[in-house]
Amino acid sequence: MTVQIDNAADRTAFARVYAEVQQFYARHMYLLDSGAGREWAETFTSDGVFAPPSAPRPIAGRAALAAGVEQAHAELREKGEQHRHLLLSVDVRPQMDGSLAVRSYAQIIATPRGGEPRVHLMCVTHDVLVRDADGRLLVRHRRVTRDDRP
Amino acid sequence: MTVQIDNAADRTAFARVYAEVQQFYARHMYLLDSGAGREWAETFTSDGVFAPPSAPRPIAGRAALAAGVEQAHAELREKGEQHRHLLLSVDVRPQMDGSLAVRSYAQIIATPRGGEPRVHLMCVTHDVLVRDADGRLLVRHRRVTRDDRP
Amino acid sequence: MTVQIDNAADRTAFARVYAEVQQFYARHMYLLDSGAGREWAETFTSDGVFAPPSAPRPIAGRAALAAGVEQAHAELREKGEQHRHLLLSVDVRPQMDGSLAVRSYAQIIATPRGGEPRVHLMCVTHDVLVRDADGRLLVRHRRVTRDDRP
Repeated sequence: MTVQIDNAADRTAFARVYAEVQQFYARHMYLLDSGAGREWAETFTSDGVFAPPSAPRPIAGRAALAAGVEQAHAELREKGEQHRHLLLSVDVRPQMDGSLAVRSYAQIIATPRGGEPRVHLMCVTHDVLVRDADGRLLVRHRRVTRDDRP
Repeated sequence: MTVQIDNAADRTAFARVYAEVQQFYARHMYLLDSGAGREWAETFTSDGVFAPPSAPRPIAGRAALAAGVEQAHAELREKGEQHRHLLLSVDVRPQMDGSLAVRSYAQIIATPRGGEPRVHLMCVTHDVLVRDADGRLLVRHRRVTRDDRP
Repeated sequence: MTVQIDNAADRTAFARVYAEVQQFYARHMYLLDSGAGREWAETFTSDGVFAPPSAPRPIAGRAALAAGVEQAHAELREKGEQHRHLLLSVDVRPQMDGSLAVRSYAQIIATPRGGEPRVHLMCVTHDVLVRDADGRLLVRHRRVTRDDRP
């Protein structure tokens, strides 16, 4: 159930969360694009799940998440290609249980060494974000759909 | 006339509005890209006007706005293509009359089923946003220019 | 040294800064893309430095910054091409000295007159932002790396 946002205090709280989510994604995706698998995996909960469109089944837990990133990054390095994941048009809906339902447009830009960038994939990302004991945001669940596979 | 923003209270108010505008556009464009014509049209005022670069004259009123979206979406479905409208680099200027003058860069990404995405159009969007009786943002006027037609 | 952000007041302050930085970049890049060299240069400190990936050495000071933009814009006009600089996925880290360390993904979209847009360059931008006597943000230092030249 989504929380209703009415008055100025609520709207300030929403602005806080909205900025925080954008900042979270900026760092989160920079870690991914840098191949920093372990640090990236630590931005998921310990039982975090990532259901990508291209994997046969969801990836669960930090060890598997980190390994996936490290392998993908090694393949891209081999190929001489830099990927950038941009989470844009972020729609944040605070839930009654304190979690955040976040839907965003995910653009992946691929640039080959010495070549021209291209839009590699256009996706929609559906995240459930929660907070750890220190109040930091973490991804508990991520589901991604690709626009080329409707 | 644009409001001057000076002290911390004003800057908090600006942050509230800025987050709200970004959230508004995220939902607004998701409705558009989903072909939800009627819900999309309800994010305009009842006399809302959309002056797109490709229409011979501005589209006015919710019925016409909804019909336009539904037709465009049917054509894209027929063609097997998904469009995504991203309103980025949002510049929000609160006006003395309480409206918001918002200029943004609009990117349209098109993805054919089974194919590669491409940047279909790059535009600049000039919106006037106002609030309804419940304080929700609505588009009163939208003017769009295309970068390929300067 | 980066400031730690803990409580609600700090988080509100962060939201203020985050909105302000996004708004700053929206205007800053619109000036650049419009060829408004002098106004753009005034969003740098008087001794502001821009270290672009394509210049042999950093560009320093407003006169040189403005001249660079005006020349680049004249060349694009000659060529019939509109560029748009989008600073996305903004990561803002307030520093102990009051400055802001900002890292973002910079996308340059190029649209030829009568043609299709393309992603011209994908870059990472590292800025140091400071405030002038009136509290307005200015770029003190900018360093940009290109994804095609790793």
